[in-house]
Amino acid sequence: MAAGGAAATAAQHWRALLAAALDSNAHLKHSTYFQLATVSVNGRPANRTVVFRGFQEGSDNILINTDSRTRKIEEINQFHYGEICWYFTESWEQFRINGRIDVIDSSTRDLAKQQQRKESWFASSLKSRLQYLRPVPRLPVLEESSEDYQLDPSIGPLDSFCLLVFNPEQVDYVNLKRNVRFLFTSSRSSDQSNNAWQIEKVNP
Amino acid sequence: MAAGGAAATAAQHWRALLAAALDSNAHLKHSTYFQLATVSVNGRPANRTVVFRGFQEGSDNILINTDSRTRKIEEINQFHYGEICWYFTESWEQFRINGRIDVIDSSTRDLAKQQQRKESWFASSLKSRLQYLRPVPRLPVLEESSEDYQLDPSIGPLDSFCLLVFNPEQVDYVNLKRNVRFLFTSSRSSDQSNNAWQIEKVNP
Repeated sequence: MAAGGAAATAAQHWRALLAAALDSNAHLKHSTYFQLATVSVNGRPANRTVVFRGFQEGSDNILINTDSRTRKIEEINQFHYGEICWYFTESWEQFRINGRIDVIDSSTRDLAKQQQRKESWFASSLKSRLQYLRPVPRLPVLEESSEDYQLDPSIGPLDSFCLLVFNPEQVDYVNLKRNVRFLFTSSRSSDQSNNAWQIEKVNP
Repeated sequence: MAAGGAAATAAQHWRALLAAALDSNAHLKHSTYFQLATVSVNGRPANRTVVFRGFQEGSDNILINTDSRTRKIEEINQFHYGEICWYFTESWEQFRINGRIDVIDSSTRDLAKQQQRKESWFASSLKSRLQYLRPVPRLPVLEESSEDYQLDPSIGPLDSFCLLVFNPEQVDYVNLKRNVRFLFTSSRSSDQSNNAWQIEKVNP
């Protein structure tokens, strides 16, 4: 890919850098995993691995599926900001993406958002969907689960299925092989479709 | 290693689980990298990849080297808590470690802490030490650096060298292959040497 070389000289959009990183690390299953930090209810940071589910169509928003019964939903509903740290283990590239998170769960009234949640549900594998039938995460184990869950593939999102829409405002990109670092800052207008990014080359 | 099997049945200390994970992933350079979340000065979460530098002798404290000129030092000095997310890409194990962070930099007066900082400096490779000579991280690039730094191997810690001592209070361990999860909570006495851990098996 030409991305790395271009990055060493100038101004490539972070989306292009990310696409190249995903491409060059595609043979690694974990290349679509990243760590999402939020602020917990007691004010301390929280951090966990989640899976990249692609971008929302026509935007830079990152989609993440999660279980509405996990603590992060309560955390995000209280404080809407997060930072993704996405490290690519083969190309030694890191994307730190800071932004606002929108929670779309079974209680969301906006019909367009519910449609997006439904699409994300059906875009998941049946095996992924099955996990939303499991006992409440983080509660004490009451009995050993048989793990023998069944789910009709045509059924819509379960109540425990939640879609997070992560809206990037700043991206801090570093390439440790090429020793370059770029800061991308969104200068978003209220009209989301008009999202420009300022780029600055900084010391790694 | 027997650790995974033991974890499926009961109560193994998180240190033993971590030692087994490090062992089974040792062929991967990135197995000693994890993501450290903190709360930034504006209250938003911050998250970045750092390198595990071992445990402080005789304790569960995790050592991390960093540059005192990075923002995380200002962040941690304002709010001392962090959460490590350490995902092992081959064994599918995740350790979320929440705790308090102690900053030891050139201004620290405690002699024992300065000794620890000095030991961490000399435990680093000469190549690692060279990075503390580089231009201030995250400032605009003024000129292309020649990367031709020299450093006397016998010289002690540079001012920009900072040691973080991460003091774990809770560890949330999940093994995605075996589908088990344990919460470890410290019941530390004021005497740090007497650190007991409570263990609870919870739903993944």
